[in-house]
Amino acid sequence: MKILVLHGPNLNLLGTREPGIYGSATLADIDGELEKLAAELGVAIDSFQSNSEGALVDAIQNAMGKVNGIIINPAAYTHTSVAIRDALTAVSLPAVEVHLSNIHTRESFRHTSFTSPVTVGQIIGFGPDSYLLGLRALVGILRRRAQ
Amino acid sequence: MKILVLHGPNLNLLGTREPGIYGSATLADIDGELEKLAAELGVAIDSFQSNSEGALVDAIQNAMGKVNGIIINPAAYTHTSVAIRDALTAVSLPAVEVHLSNIHTRESFRHTSFTSPVTVGQIIGFGPDSYLLGLRALVGILRRRAQ
Amino acid sequence: MKILVLHGPNLNLLGTREPGIYGSATLADIDGELEKLAAELGVAIDSFQSNSEGALVDAIQNAMGKVNGIIINPAAYTHTSVAIRDALTAVSLPAVEVHLSNIHTRESFRHTSFTSPVTVGQIIGFGPDSYLLGLRALVGILRRRAQ
Amino acid sequence: MKILVLHGPNLNLLGTREPGIYGSATLADIDGELEKLAAELGVAIDSFQSNSEGALVDAIQNAMGKVNGIIINPAAYTHTSVAIRDALTAVSLPAVEVHLSNIHTRESFRHTSFTSPVTVGQIIGFGPDSYLLGLRALVGILRRRAQ
Amino acid sequence: MKILVLHGPNLNLLGTREPGIYGSATLADIDGELEKLAAELGVAIDSFQSNSEGALVDAIQNAMGKVNGIIINPAAYTHTSVAIRDALTAVSLPAVEVHLSNIHTRESFRHTSFTSPVTVGQIIGFGPDSYLLGLRALVGILRRRAQ
Amino acid sequence: MKILVLHGPNLNLLGTREPGIYGSATLADIDGELEKLAAELGVAIDSFQSNSEGALVDAIQNAMGKVNGIIINPAAYTHTSVAIRDALTAVSLPAVEVHLSNIHTRESFRHTSFTSPVTVGQIIGFGPDSYLLGLRALVGILRRRAQ
Amino acid sequence: MKILVLHGPNLNLLGTREPGIYGSATLADIDGELEKLAAELGVAIDSFQSNSEGALVDAIQNAMGKVNGIIINPAAYTHTSVAIRDALTAVSLPAVEVHLSNIHTRESFRHTSFTSPVTVGQIIGFGPDSYLLGLRALVGILRRRAQ
Amino acid sequence: MKILVLHGPNLNLLGTREPGIYGSATLADIDGELEKLAAELGVAIDSFQSNSEGALVDAIQNAMGKVNGIIINPAAYTHTSVAIRDALTAVSLPAVEVHLSNIHTRESFRHTSFTSPVTVGQIIGFGPDSYLLGLRALVGILRRRAQ
Amino acid sequence: MKILVLHGPNLNLLGTREPGIYGSATLADIDGELEKLAAELGVAIDSFQSNSEGALVDAIQNAMGKVNGIIINPAAYTHTSVAIRDALTAVSLPAVEVHLSNIHTRESFRHTSFTSPVTVGQIIGFGPDSYLLGLRALVGILRRRAQ
Amino acid sequence: MKILVLHGPNLNLLGTREPGIYGSATLADIDGELEKLAAELGVAIDSFQSNSEGALVDAIQNAMGKVNGIIINPAAYTHTSVAIRDALTAVSLPAVEVHLSNIHTRESFRHTSFTSPVTVGQIIGFGPDSYLLGLRALVGILRRRAQ
Amino acid sequence: MKILVLHGPNLNLLGTREPGIYGSATLADIDGELEKLAAELGVAIDSFQSNSEGALVDAIQNAMGKVNGIIINPAAYTHTSVAIRDALTAVSLPAVEVHLSNIHTRESFRHTSFTSPVTVGQIIGFGPDSYLLGLRALVGILRRRAQ
Amino acid sequence: MKILVLHGPNLNLLGTREPGIYGSATLADIDGELEKLAAELGVAIDSFQSNSEGALVDAIQNAMGKVNGIIINPAAYTHTSVAIRDALTAVSLPAVEVHLSNIHTRESFRHTSFTSPVTVGQIIGFGPDSYLLGLRALVGILRRRAQ
Repeated sequence: MKILVLHGPNLNLLGTREPGIYGSATLADIDGELEKLAAELGVAIDSFQSNSEGALVDAIQNAMGKVNGIIINPAAYTHTSVAIRDALTAVSLPAVEVHLSNIHTRESFRHTSFTSPVTVGQIIGFGPDSYLLGLRALVGILRRRAQ
Repeated sequence: MKILVLHGPNLNLLGTREPGIYGSATLADIDGELEKLAAELGVAIDSFQSNSEGALVDAIQNAMGKVNGIIINPAAYTHTSVAIRDALTAVSLPAVEVHLSNIHTRESFRHTSFTSPVTVGQIIGFGPDSYLLGLRALVGILRRRAQ
Repeated sequence: MKILVLHGPNLNLLGTREPGIYGSATLADIDGELEKLAAELGVAIDSFQSNSEGALVDAIQNAMGKVNGIIINPAAYTHTSVAIRDALTAVSLPAVEVHLSNIHTRESFRHTSFTSPVTVGQIIGFGPDSYLLGLRALVGILRRRAQ
Repeated sequence: MKILVLHGPNLNLLGTREPGIYGSATLADIDGELEKLAAELGVAIDSFQSNSEGALVDAIQNAMGKVNGIIINPAAYTHTSVAIRDALTAVSLPAVEVHLSNIHTRESFRHTSFTSPVTVGQIIGFGPDSYLLGLRALVGILRRRAQ
Repeated sequence: MKILVLHGPNLNLLGTREPGIYGSATLADIDGELEKLAAELGVAIDSFQSNSEGALVDAIQNAMGKVNGIIINPAAYTHTSVAIRDALTAVSLPAVEVHLSNIHTRESFRHTSFTSPVTVGQIIGFGPDSYLLGLRALVGILRRRAQ
Repeated sequence: MKILVLHGPNLNLLGTREPGIYGSATLADIDGELEKLAAELGVAIDSFQSNSEGALVDAIQNAMGKVNGIIINPAAYTHTSVAIRDALTAVSLPAVEVHLSNIHTRESFRHTSFTSPVTVGQIIGFGPDSYLLGLRALVGILRRRAQ
Repeated sequence: MKILVLHGPNLNLLGTREPGIYGSATLADIDGELEKLAAELGVAIDSFQSNSEGALVDAIQNAMGKVNGIIINPAAYTHTSVAIRDALTAVSLPAVEVHLSNIHTRESFRHTSFTSPVTVGQIIGFGPDSYLLGLRALVGILRRRAQ
Repeated sequence: MKILVLHGPNLNLLGTREPGIYGSATLADIDGELEKLAAELGVAIDSFQSNSEGALVDAIQNAMGKVNGIIINPAAYTHTSVAIRDALTAVSLPAVEVHLSNIHTRESFRHTSFTSPVTVGQIIGFGPDSYLLGLRALVGILRRRAQ
Repeated sequence: MKILVLHGPNLNLLGTREPGIYGSATLADIDGELEKLAAELGVAIDSFQSNSEGALVDAIQNAMGKVNGIIINPAAYTHTSVAIRDALTAVSLPAVEVHLSNIHTRESFRHTSFTSPVTVGQIIGFGPDSYLLGLRALVGILRRRAQ
Repeated sequence: MKILVLHGPNLNLLGTREPGIYGSATLADIDGELEKLAAELGVAIDSFQSNSEGALVDAIQNAMGKVNGIIINPAAYTHTSVAIRDALTAVSLPAVEVHLSNIHTRESFRHTSFTSPVTVGQIIGFGPDSYLLGLRALVGILRRRAQ
Repeated sequence: MKILVLHGPNLNLLGTREPGIYGSATLADIDGELEKLAAELGVAIDSFQSNSEGALVDAIQNAMGKVNGIIINPAAYTHTSVAIRDALTAVSLPAVEVHLSNIHTRESFRHTSFTSPVTVGQIIGFGPDSYLLGLRALVGILRRRAQ
Repeated sequence: MKILVLHGPNLNLLGTREPGIYGSATLADIDGELEKLAAELGVAIDSFQSNSEGALVDAIQNAMGKVNGIIINPAAYTHTSVAIRDALTAVSLPAVEVHLSNIHTRESFRHTSFTSPVTVGQIIGFGPDSYLLGLRALVGILRRRAQ
């Protein structure tokens, strides 16, 4: 069982970028914790970050037939990308949307999401734990579907 | 470490009510699973359901000084209750908002939440697992704060 | 064949409250007329009034398995209660929404209804006759379904 | 006592048109049932259908001095015709608005009505019974006014 | 195979009316070109223009059982007529919506269409060619359905 | 010099219809006063009333080449008819829009006009005098253009 | 019988300012034509222009008890001044609102007017003739009231 | 002369809840100050707090015939309760709405009030003094009406 | 301790202007009552009325260093003046906003206020008493701050 | 005569992606059919697909001076890309916008298009035929311009 | 070459007013710096401040024929004054709009400007430097036009 | 002191693209003028253009630790890119937003900017001079901060 973890734009700066909002963990830290939990849960993960909407669409398309599900933090593209939404719909893989910060306490344009309606569920506001909870959520879905 | 689990209106009908949307688990099933996980995590939980906005406000107020955090599925009151929002703010306890279904694929009035901006985070769309992930999320927050 | 008649907030004041808008009949008068018509149509009615949203949700839930349909005048909760809407959906009983006054000639917030989309139909503006017409409408639906 | 029954655009196709939404009764069936009930209630009815907004306005104007009230299903013109609204206001006859389907479960442009504020009341969602209930409602109003 | 071509209000003035926007071809010119192409494609066409919403609704209704599809340029009624939309839905014939000018470069009230959601597709902005392309599109649909 | 005077829907009821809003003068009274003033100003007038949008569009089209300008009280169609707007634009005749009542003190849907942007100007709120002032305004425009 | 003519901001530049929109007549020209017509109609006029909202409010207040009616072209203040609206209401004098250009073909913020609902009527789009027609309109109102 | 003082949801936590916004006075402190001022003004007060919308509606209804006026701080229900608004209208008692904090500097959903249009006036932003000023305001109204 | 009382546009007409809405007291009456209460409370007041937005801004600026607080009824400028709002912010004096009538029962443009967010609080709907209550409120604030 | 055919994001998945909405033809199938028709019409086509907004902008820019017109299916970027709109405007080549599905029966965010106002026309809803019709439309435009 | 510098309401308080937002430079400081730069650039400047909308309109009008361009900081009137906009349009002088603070980080009503569309350009957010950059910008425009 | 100059999509076409709106200077011309001014001001500049949102995000991120500030003309991405906004926030460098044309006289979607609230200021509408003024503005900010 393999899972793709997608990190949207500016997440490569984690740890350096606005630690008051996003915390001090780096993306490598998060990927490391995810891999530990993945091992514990008996699944493999593959992680990819890009600042480009098109590269994220490509990555979602390439996941077809290779992974069982997707964890995606679309970051800024959450609020502006119909292309990522369409890619998620097109590949028909269960996806979980995660956000580090509580987007509902931030600017109003961050309160709407193009991806939420095409993902199974969302986990929002728990810092790096959002990813770990997202992994548990996705593995749960995949295990139940596999039964 | 004690955690209050609040179930909003109509959740007492779980298992019987629209299983296509909410699944076949009853509220007792969910509370049972929560207790098992709570034991595993070394915390205690207290669960309460009400169809009354005022009773839910009372329950939140009564939690002050008695519990360390709140898991709340405000159900219909998510979208209409400023009183529950104000109660959550007033008691200054970390709260996690959970929803069984993906509210973003349903009627547009379910896309806004009065409680999201005053909770730490939200877990949406994973059926009964939303509660279990919420418990993990809340315990994580409390453990980090306790350090 | 049994029918639940639900009266929302402030309807207990009927006859005394703003007779220019709501007429001089009391709630007891309306219930009396409903019982006469129910007898004529060969059905039984059960009537309940509450000023509490939660109590109305409870009453709808308790109707499951005991009545064949619901006549509801949600009054003020028409425009603000997702909880009553969800309860009506949950119990899967045919419901008819009635209003004494023509809500479309009043304040604009009274022009939208959370309950209309989950009821079979609405009868609006005929004073106490709205209830009697609602009873006829509901009995018609139930008789046709019973065929 | 005479009552005009007005059927708006496309209602002449009833029975053939989208039976899933509008049922299998034809307009002639409905007029037949209305006449039976009218006889029972001791009133006469006159029925008219047109696809033309102007012809419906003419029909309302011509009713002045000839009928005691109007039952109108403005169909599509409910949502677009100020001219029919103005005609109803101009003739000063009590009018009841009826709809076969529950317009609140359909497209959002069907949720607003130009005619509702100038009619006594509305009966919505009961199929052909909406007309019969409308006739009862109107006769009730006329009898009370005649007292 | 027979196709009804419907021209909405003011299209009878084509060639004289605002040639800067609509070109110098008259409606007769367009009907002539349509007939030539129809002959080439082996289908028959029937053309009708009216300034009256009701007459256009009548024409759509009368097409039932007599034609295989409809090409409609609803002109001004595109933006205001629920009655024409309902007629198109009622007759269950495949319809193609055409516009001479690019409505998206004109007043904002021309950017919305009541008919688009109930037609198979739209062809917008190619002058008289919009009709010819519409005929090809419709014949393509009918031929594929006939297979 | 000839001028077409167009009266929209329900204006044939003038004098009988809501005298509190529209006054007691009939349409014949207004046409009579207009003819007197026209004679005084040395122009001829032609008057037409219809409840049908299509008939009003036809009348505007037929005016091309026969009259020098149009006075139009579109009444209810002011707020709903793109077809009349397009007809006025198509015939390229100077037009003056008149209203008997002050539409800005009435329902909000009467505050917008499809015809105002395609007429030279508007005269609103002076009862029958709106027509007489409109005639003076139009003759003034035509005389200046003729210089 | 005396009438106050009020000219709002920037109208002192008439003749020099944007002649394409406002024409080449100066304010003195307009006042001159108004005085000629006033003499013809047997009334006196008093004219005042200001660029200051407060000065226009003062002028309206000072008119109380001294004039029989007001002709006002509020210009830019049409769209922004509640103070002028309140002054017009306070003095209880019949007022006619005039505009030189057709405000409905200009920027959308010019389509709404704070003064229209508190004036008897509006005359819009006829250049300097708007004032002359306004004077005729106002004298007509005053003569009828005086009867 | 007797006055009912109604405290809405979460006001029982005053003094403990967000002192930065609401100050350190408890509800008992406020009731104590109100009673002192009431004695000074020669009136009696009755105070009631509830977190339940229905209980507040009941309390307003029960006040009929027993008190001369109402001071109400609807707190969260200000922005969501049509039921409390309807109750205030139904009992026809003069009511004064008070708020401790300046709601206009807070979240935008707190800027609208269902109760303001059915109360005599509002006093907003003066902490506990809002109640004392409200009592003076209400006694002033009652004394003037009693004259 | 000195307090500036500012009266906005048209308030100089009080007593004559729309007594149904504003009562029969004149501005001099109100200033007289204010002075009596000021004497009783041991403070001095300075009163100023203007119809000019700029003059009111000047008056607020001139108050800096000369008074301890401001009572302001911005009247029409409440809803349109950012300049007065900015002046109040600039001088950093505690201000109380008062209104004679209940602005929430009037036109919708009167429901929003530019000044409310920069004043300490608002007193609305009590006629001349709004000013007296405002004086008490402001003195209370100043006395508490002086402690 | 050469024509650039641009396929937006996710169109590379055609045939596999949601065949219920987009049909079973692959992008290669469509390009094949386009080439056949191009040969028939005596023009050459060049086809390009990308998931990246920037790459599509580059492709449009590179077309300047090399092709005579553009057929573009912007897919998801239709609704979000001002950059593609600006590129189309910048190169001043006639462009035709095509869509496979009827975007007006889908989510409301698909009802608006940034590209429509800067293309000559749109062809929507005919599956792969939308491209073929688009090619005919564009060749027609180019041939007429070449005359 | 002469340039008018206009300072809107409350800018006379600069240096004292909210230094956190506007800095500690006074208006005299800014005018001094402007004069130094003007001398350097070989132009003359004339500076004027007013709190009155009408006085600013007068100043713009008086500039006609006397200055070559205008630098204007309309301050609060940016967001509310159509009169100043109309004056700028009327005098046909190139104008540059400047703001001290970044209005896009402040209240949403400060995000719209009536003057921006009638000025050549805007310089926003650089404190006193906004004026100096504005002077350079305007001189650049005038020099290029003079070529 | 080093400054990054970022040019958004389609700016590589400057000089060829819509010279009526953007002028005839090429991007190389602008960079040349910027370098001359930079030399004069004693700073170095680095310039980069891309049509890709992701490449612009990358460029902003790479600037961290290498430049002292950013001049950015986000062009089309001004109105659609949250990713560029987030990148600007993340790198915590002072940025100045520039636009060649006056975006407030163009389409309404160009009136809003995602980047304005996270830049120090904006310079809009002065053609290539916008960049030069932006460089002066940024150097001013950096010099003051360096003191």
